[in-house]
Amino acid sequence: MNTFGRLFRVTTWGESHGSAIGCVVDGCPSGLELKQEEIQAELDRRRPGQSSIVTPRAEEDRVEILSGIFEGRSLGSPISMLIQNRDVDSSKYEAIKDTPRPGHGDLTWRQKFGHVDWRGGGRNSARETAARVAAGAVGKKLLQTAGISIIAHSKEIGGIKADGVEVNSNNIDEIKKKIESNPVRALDRADEMEKAILAAREDSDSVGGIVEAVALGVPPGLGEPLSHKLDAEIAAAMMGIPAVKGVEIGAGFELVKMKGSEANDEFIIDDDKVRTSTNNCGGILGGISNGMPIVIRVAIKPTSSIGKEQKTVNLATMEGATIMVGGRHDPCIVPRAVPVVEAMLALVLADHSLLAGTIAGTSGRIAP
Amino acid sequence: MNTFGRLFRVTTWGESHGSAIGCVVDGCPSGLELKQEEIQAELDRRRPGQSSIVTPRAEEDRVEILSGIFEGRSLGSPISMLIQNRDVDSSKYEAIKDTPRPGHGDLTWRQKFGHVDWRGGGRNSARETAARVAAGAVGKKLLQTAGISIIAHSKEIGGIKADGVEVNSNNIDEIKKKIESNPVRALDRADEMEKAILAAREDSDSVGGIVEAVALGVPPGLGEPLSHKLDAEIAAAMMGIPAVKGVEIGAGFELVKMKGSEANDEFIIDDDKVRTSTNNCGGILGGISNGMPIVIRVAIKPTSSIGKEQKTVNLATMEGATIMVGGRHDPCIVPRAVPVVEAMLALVLADHSLLAGTIAGTSGRIAP
Amino acid sequence: MNTFGRLFRVTTWGESHGSAIGCVVDGCPSGLELKQEEIQAELDRRRPGQSSIVTPRAEEDRVEILSGIFEGRSLGSPISMLIQNRDVDSSKYEAIKDTPRPGHGDLTWRQKFGHVDWRGGGRNSARETAARVAAGAVGKKLLQTAGISIIAHSKEIGGIKADGVEVNSNNIDEIKKKIESNPVRALDRADEMEKAILAAREDSDSVGGIVEAVALGVPPGLGEPLSHKLDAEIAAAMMGIPAVKGVEIGAGFELVKMKGSEANDEFIIDDDKVRTSTNNCGGILGGISNGMPIVIRVAIKPTSSIGKEQKTVNLATMEGATIMVGGRHDPCIVPRAVPVVEAMLALVLADHSLLAGTIAGTSGRIAP
Amino acid sequence: MNTFGRLFRVTTWGESHGSAIGCVVDGCPSGLELKQEEIQAELDRRRPGQSSIVTPRAEEDRVEILSGIFEGRSLGSPISMLIQNRDVDSSKYEAIKDTPRPGHGDLTWRQKFGHVDWRGGGRNSARETAARVAAGAVGKKLLQTAGISIIAHSKEIGGIKADGVEVNSNNIDEIKKKIESNPVRALDRADEMEKAILAAREDSDSVGGIVEAVALGVPPGLGEPLSHKLDAEIAAAMMGIPAVKGVEIGAGFELVKMKGSEANDEFIIDDDKVRTSTNNCGGILGGISNGMPIVIRVAIKPTSSIGKEQKTVNLATMEGATIMVGGRHDPCIVPRAVPVVEAMLALVLADHSLLAGTIAGTSGRIAP
Repeated sequence: MNTFGRLFRVTTWGESHGSAIGCVVDGCPSGLELKQEEIQAELDRRRPGQSSIVTPRAEEDRVEILSGIFEGRSLGSPISMLIQNRDVDSSKYEAIKDTPRPGHGDLTWRQKFGHVDWRGGGRNSARETAARVAAGAVGKKLLQTAGISIIAHSKEIGGIKADGVEVNSNNIDEIKKKIESNPVRALDRADEMEKAILAAREDSDSVGGIVEAVALGVPPGLGEPLSHKLDAEIAAAMMGIPAVKGVEIGAGFELVKMKGSEANDEFIIDDDKVRTSTNNCGGILGGISNGMPIVIRVAIKPTSSIGKEQKTVNLATMEGATIMVGGRHDPCIVPRAVPVVEAMLALVLADHSLLAGTIAGTSGRIAP
Repeated sequence: MNTFGRLFRVTTWGESHGSAIGCVVDGCPSGLELKQEEIQAELDRRRPGQSSIVTPRAEEDRVEILSGIFEGRSLGSPISMLIQNRDVDSSKYEAIKDTPRPGHGDLTWRQKFGHVDWRGGGRNSARETAARVAAGAVGKKLLQTAGISIIAHSKEIGGIKADGVEVNSNNIDEIKKKIESNPVRALDRADEMEKAILAAREDSDSVGGIVEAVALGVPPGLGEPLSHKLDAEIAAAMMGIPAVKGVEIGAGFELVKMKGSEANDEFIIDDDKVRTSTNNCGGILGGISNGMPIVIRVAIKPTSSIGKEQKTVNLATMEGATIMVGGRHDPCIVPRAVPVVEAMLALVLADHSLLAGTIAGTSGRIAP
Repeated sequence: MNTFGRLFRVTTWGESHGSAIGCVVDGCPSGLELKQEEIQAELDRRRPGQSSIVTPRAEEDRVEILSGIFEGRSLGSPISMLIQNRDVDSSKYEAIKDTPRPGHGDLTWRQKFGHVDWRGGGRNSARETAARVAAGAVGKKLLQTAGISIIAHSKEIGGIKADGVEVNSNNIDEIKKKIESNPVRALDRADEMEKAILAAREDSDSVGGIVEAVALGVPPGLGEPLSHKLDAEIAAAMMGIPAVKGVEIGAGFELVKMKGSEANDEFIIDDDKVRTSTNNCGGILGGISNGMPIVIRVAIKPTSSIGKEQKTVNLATMEGATIMVGGRHDPCIVPRAVPVVEAMLALVLADHSLLAGTIAGTSGRIAP
Repeated sequence: MNTFGRLFRVTTWGESHGSAIGCVVDGCPSGLELKQEEIQAELDRRRPGQSSIVTPRAEEDRVEILSGIFEGRSLGSPISMLIQNRDVDSSKYEAIKDTPRPGHGDLTWRQKFGHVDWRGGGRNSARETAARVAAGAVGKKLLQTAGISIIAHSKEIGGIKADGVEVNSNNIDEIKKKIESNPVRALDRADEMEKAILAAREDSDSVGGIVEAVALGVPPGLGEPLSHKLDAEIAAAMMGIPAVKGVEIGAGFELVKMKGSEANDEFIIDDDKVRTSTNNCGGILGGISNGMPIVIRVAIKPTSSIGKEQKTVNLATMEGATIMVGGRHDPCIVPRAVPVVEAMLALVLADHSLLAGTIAGTSGRIAP
């Protein structure tokens, strides 16, 4: 299955070294103003070749919108988007097509499908996330009409942990700028993180990290109990991003060591609304948003494709083998995962906004 | 929405203090041998009143099977199961129906639905998980036909962390016995955990912890790329359990600090099959199972309903208020969450086994 | 699969001679006033034993509401309903369990599932439609809040065709009374239809007919292009009713012989709204409602279970055999199909009303 | 919604006068041999400009496969296909963008979405069916691996009814040739039908008809009781084709006038298998295939876009108006609907073959 969402549905398609990748966004209400440049801007944040710490694969990642937009506004019909694959070099992959890369899905895809496109990881390549980012850009635009903003940043890379900054509606623009001002997309200690990445690359190795994301302006009442809770769907969206192995919401794993009296967020009245004085729950209680910022963190493992020699097996001969992965890989995927995390969070919130009726009005139009 | 799964579909229903709760399991192939006692046995592990450290609500939780089983075997039609609510005492809840409990979903459900059943938390009560456990028992039985076993235990409670034990096909029966031999369902340091729970209760407070679950015998090839990856669906299933705020797979958040060369699980040939020498990935790569044990951990926050005085608001008057939650609550939900985690993991694996065609043969029957 | 609908989801369960049948209605917005008697009233129209022309199986069909309703209003959580099977007599079925009834699904269910409940047709019995009628009663009540009414009647039975009557908002109550005033539920020629049924029964045979249904008050804009068009979903709902073999909308098969200039419904302005001067399209154009009455007709084959001797095969011996079906069967299913057709139409319109946002407001509540 | 199917999922996208239309086929098992020409061949049957009786819009309808196929075989990942729109002339539509065409969905789409692409009907154009035909070609190829063939033909056009021919595995190739040998795709009386169409065009009018489709080689056991019965899903697939207003299966509406003893198909043993001596049920009983040919008929109304003057309204001024529809339209859509009916039937059967496990083996591969 390659479709995310129930009312805001995104289907992605494409192999890394095929002719193109793309997505179809179905269920976007009609009347949404949407420009090609707005989608391109998000893709530009994810695309390779932006700095010295990412893969040198030179993809422009120009998005073409093929349907669903007319006179600058969405039609309520599927928005089909396409990104050509241009800088394709499959030569490095032919040599390793029978020796699966440790830590990578090469083997499991082959176990499942038998016939695989071994070029550049085929469908099982992080390149597919470009399609999600394009779809996420539509989701973000839709959420904007309801005053919802999403922002993510590199919280930790290679053991270097940024100090906490509370994002709120006053500082969000400034923080966005700060995140984009350094190649690791951190709010703090960016230089140290960059050095950790470069050191890993130098050593033909890789490092991982944590991306933190915040959604502001989410109204109370989003979430579908009991089987499609907002936090459950966010967890699925995050865990489905390549290289993610952990997800937590609010104080997350820290809550494990707290007492109930410490963990519970007390209620207060603020400006005639009920809010909580702390936000250990990360904006979600009982699977439903409570109006506080949604705060999540995802654990991203170090890139599995590394130049160091590792043990693997030759599937053709069923004998032991070694591999040193060539090709063009990011020594740390965290900085480029930042826009992907934002995109996936946007898809979930857009879907739940439609489910809760807080965005679209009757008959699938943007609420007036 | 109250339905889990795509081919193995479970719909739960019922309020905590209504006349009954229950579930409908749809999509179970025909021909599965299934006895009422097998489902009851799982419910008995979850039901309240088992020991001094859980709620004294005295529910027998007798399951009635209303359909879908004939002459001891499944028909391929929906299996409807019902559990009466008997020991209902709503008196404690009337007093707090306008003062939402901090850390609980009282407020968000009211924000979403307006009209709520305030008795015992209504639908938003952990009592609903009994229905999931009943459904999970069917899932477990189905998985057994394919040689898949699931086991969970309390890895950490109130800051007390059990030492690691590797579960495998040789020791699983012994480990199951050990887990059920102590009230906290731990493999190690059970006494200390119990003391931590009792101390919290003494103090009108509560503690949280971590449940670890392992699935053995999962064949390679389960998982649906890219939108319904096995790890993504497991994450959703876990995060949707009440009080869960974090999920990790394999080495999880520990991977964040590793190098790629440490994190990658190298491939080896063992008994003519490809396996990995370590299992940092927790049995899943690229969203697809690799044949190694699936290992997950979930972070469970301390019970939100505590006797200590906390600040809240009165929704009727929109003024500040305090609350000391009465009623009958577990000072630590972790031990009773163990069978729930197992059940939810079973539901996901049963669903994916059907999707991958590894259990049912043609036309919805158990493969011969 | 046993679940209808996307947002208004109905799962039915139960075998004809099991302990009970029932359904779970999930997705009904909160705040809907709903009484047990309102559901019972619809079940009473469908239940057996009402007159001399239907099966004498004496089922009270008392519905029990187990969840989802609190203080007379829906909670937004699943509404679980249960109907006991009381007047069960499986003796007639044991004799024919290896000789499938011609025209009945006995054989195909056995071909698919291998293991079947042969008592009274098991899950493959029209008794299951009682659960749909109970769910449809909830759907009808929900539609009423938006001014939508549904009415069906026996248009043709045993070759006797009723003259056309146009149902509209002025005469609907009178017409409802008229339909319920005769055992065949016809608006015209009811006596002749009844005689045709009695004659068939006398001859150990059966007759079929046509049910026509009309939905009034449906607003323009219901329907999901292109894959879940309103007419497509109605067609599925109708064709899925036992014994239905044809569905048409508006002028239906008559349109085949018309010219475009005759078939097209011209637009006129009426009371500042656009409507059509004729209604050959039956209220749906391009898969979307146009605000005119929705008019459909379904072809119901003669009851397959008849007392006449017919050729069949013995599945145990794989030899030819004959069968004279005993048990208690309706010589014509059309009159009792009338409330089932209404129920299924209600389910589709309720689902599409939620999808189009014309009923529920934000966060899953009945729009204020 | 624009996605058909549950396991074999087809999402179509595109507006008639946009840059392209296309589809994504998700869920096709890996290992299916598939050539671009096989898909093109089906598109060539549907594309405009084939003869004097269809629209002169000159579209080559060249399909481009963008993903999902590698080295001539499917990968199990989404197959994305694209067809450029080339011969676009929107001039005729500008004049009528505020005067909806009687019998067409112009008005309802505007009522639903507010903002519409008025050029050539936009998304609400029969051109969208090209995408379904491309997807259907994949479905047909998949079904071939299981020995299932589908064939459709014009049973009736403009009141001219072809005599019945029973399609079977011996004559199917000959019949396919015959159908493609005349522009109306009829098995009989093709000349008369063609004349009826030309006469209608001469008169600036249009005619409708009936398409009959047959599926051979369908094994017993396809179909999902009770909510996704095979006949219900076929009915939805057919009713969702533009201009279809009626669907019947087997003897369909004729069954209404039969007695049970005439309608029931008796069982016989033939070559050690159970079959029926007649096929009034059209190959489906109880919602499940019985191994006999599946036979359906769909009623197609006369093309709504006609040159004759008709009454409509001006939506800008809300006053009465007249319209004579220009543009390039088929005076009878039936011949070009034939491949569309085949495609939609293929999609349903492919989906149900996967659901029943009769095609794909484990892990989403073509069964060996």
